[in-house]
Amino acid sequence: MNIGVIGYSGDKNLEPVKSLKNICFEIGKLIAENGDTLLTGGRDGIMDFVCESAYKNNANVVGILPWDEEGNKYLNTTIKTGLDFSMRSFVLLKSVDIVISVGGQVGTALEILGAYAYKKPIILMRGTGGWTDTVTKTLIEDKYLDNRKMVELYQAYNIEELSQHINNLRGDVNL
Amino acid sequence: MNIGVIGYSGDKNLEPVKSLKNICFEIGKLIAENGDTLLTGGRDGIMDFVCESAYKNNANVVGILPWDEEGNKYLNTTIKTGLDFSMRSFVLLKSVDIVISVGGQVGTALEILGAYAYKKPIILMRGTGGWTDTVTKTLIEDKYLDNRKMVELYQAYNIEELSQHINNLRGDVNL
Amino acid sequence: MNIGVIGYSGDKNLEPVKSLKNICFEIGKLIAENGDTLLTGGRDGIMDFVCESAYKNNANVVGILPWDEEGNKYLNTTIKTGLDFSMRSFVLLKSVDIVISVGGQVGTALEILGAYAYKKPIILMRGTGGWTDTVTKTLIEDKYLDNRKMVELYQAYNIEELSQHINNLRGDVNL
Amino acid sequence: MNIGVIGYSGDKNLEPVKSLKNICFEIGKLIAENGDTLLTGGRDGIMDFVCESAYKNNANVVGILPWDEEGNKYLNTTIKTGLDFSMRSFVLLKSVDIVISVGGQVGTALEILGAYAYKKPIILMRGTGGWTDTVTKTLIEDKYLDNRKMVELYQAYNIEELSQHINNLRGDVNL
Repeated sequence: MNIGVIGYSGDKNLEPVKSLKNICFEIGKLIAENGDTLLTGGRDGIMDFVCESAYKNNANVVGILPWDEEGNKYLNTTIKTGLDFSMRSFVLLKSVDIVISVGGQVGTALEILGAYAYKKPIILMRGTGGWTDTVTKTLIEDKYLDNRKMVELYQAYNIEELSQHINNLRGDVNL
Repeated sequence: MNIGVIGYSGDKNLEPVKSLKNICFEIGKLIAENGDTLLTGGRDGIMDFVCESAYKNNANVVGILPWDEEGNKYLNTTIKTGLDFSMRSFVLLKSVDIVISVGGQVGTALEILGAYAYKKPIILMRGTGGWTDTVTKTLIEDKYLDNRKMVELYQAYNIEELSQHINNLRGDVNL
Repeated sequence: MNIGVIGYSGDKNLEPVKSLKNICFEIGKLIAENGDTLLTGGRDGIMDFVCESAYKNNANVVGILPWDEEGNKYLNTTIKTGLDFSMRSFVLLKSVDIVISVGGQVGTALEILGAYAYKKPIILMRGTGGWTDTVTKTLIEDKYLDNRKMVELYQAYNIEELSQHINNLRGDVNL
Repeated sequence: MNIGVIGYSGDKNLEPVKSLKNICFEIGKLIAENGDTLLTGGRDGIMDFVCESAYKNNANVVGILPWDEEGNKYLNTTIKTGLDFSMRSFVLLKSVDIVISVGGQVGTALEILGAYAYKKPIILMRGTGGWTDTVTKTLIEDKYLDNRKMVELYQAYNIEELSQHINNLRGDVNL
């Protein structure tokens, strides 16, 4: 599967990114061990951590970059979209089968909502803060983002629950 | 000013759009009387009502359409973006000075968050349902969508409050 | 009709733009007198001349701008696409019924070819230089840009011939 | 380097694609042997041939697809841009260091001109027909696409000349 990971950008040596290093490393490793492809925005923050872990565990790691910016050091494939931060997110979302969300400011919120609009299942890593937790306040029936109930949002409190959700979804995705 | 109005799409003879006819007509008239330009997604739902009112009151009415679809009957200018529903919203947001939100499903949520990401002030027409009301559950200090506090969201409960917000913002916008 | 005009950008007080002032003014006036809407890239060069003339003759004048740049002084409607110079051209092309080309560097060539790819008729103002003349070297049967013969390119040597082509095309365009 | 290959789409069992199988296979093999990454539009025509050869020789093969279409069978990484055929080409061009052109209709012409606009060197595989040959009629000083002389176009008549051009350019590209 193509798995998108979204979340906080920013300096990985500062909060709120710094404290998410362990969970990000676990996510990257899980993607690699499952033989899945990782797609991210390709830059700093939690993307850097997840890419590093997936890359070092031999996953195919793809960065979908805004403008013609350079990506982080852990990318097998770099796509420069020529689009701004918001619009390039939709290229990322079109290309993935599922999305994993870790913390995040408004850019992450846009990606969670955009994934739902494109009917891509989203797994929220609960407890990672930001919009990944905040968005749960808006859910209808604890799993939908609007009345049309286009696709479900799932919630995982640890790597085992994430792994379980990914395995359940793998059967549903049309590959 | 260029004023974007976002909200529910769908059949204007059915709920939840039908009941919003009066407030939409008031918004369109206000924009026209102020001499502002109206920009919308150019199609059905609350967009159709606001466009009709603004158009009949002689505003400049612009529709920013997805793909190469046709717009509603109340457009002076039709822009066919060739982009999908989500991506074309960002062309709309880039082009406006402020955004007024009325009800809305996830597409409207994307536009509220996108406006914030582009630092465009948003006025929520409270009581119109959908994400226009739901998003208030996520606000920080009752006016910001993330910790970076990039731009304020305002709340209006009637056309007079909307008019007041627009007048206050008019001084701030760089025209 | 929505009529796109493309061609040289650059300082209107310098060649090659300067010498094209008269023909640009005639084109803008013709569009206004026909009651058509003018769409351009909204900035300098021949766009500025055509916009000035159309605007002063009371046409609806629309600028489709790259990024969030400002347009020239002769626009009724300004669309900021957030896209780069090349990609925003495709929003312009999607939105027009026919294209008129005046001189132009490679950006104009992209727009001529893009119009053809979108099956929009193109009228080349012969003798204005640049790609408007150069592209004729590549035509198949003196009117097609590839073997698929998707739409015709027309050639006008003066404003009367342009006017004739526009009138002929008006009947074909689905309005 | 990231190398883009552009050219005829269409059924690979029919002309004009069919006769280009050998040169496409040689190009794919060369890219793989050099350890470069291949990026194409990811679908049929000469793209299918080049991808097959590069993939079977263990190159990293990336497809930049329009809309959310599926790619051919020889892709390590599939990017679904959500953009139409023309606009997605600009994502491809932003992401590559150099471009190799083989035959092609107007879509290929757009990519040749777009590469020039983005200052990416282009190598024309002469004798492969279509716009790859036609564009040479428009060159200024036999190597530029407009008066700004933004980047050179190179011409190769066989795989050895192509290899030589790639090696010369490798030193110039900022990797």
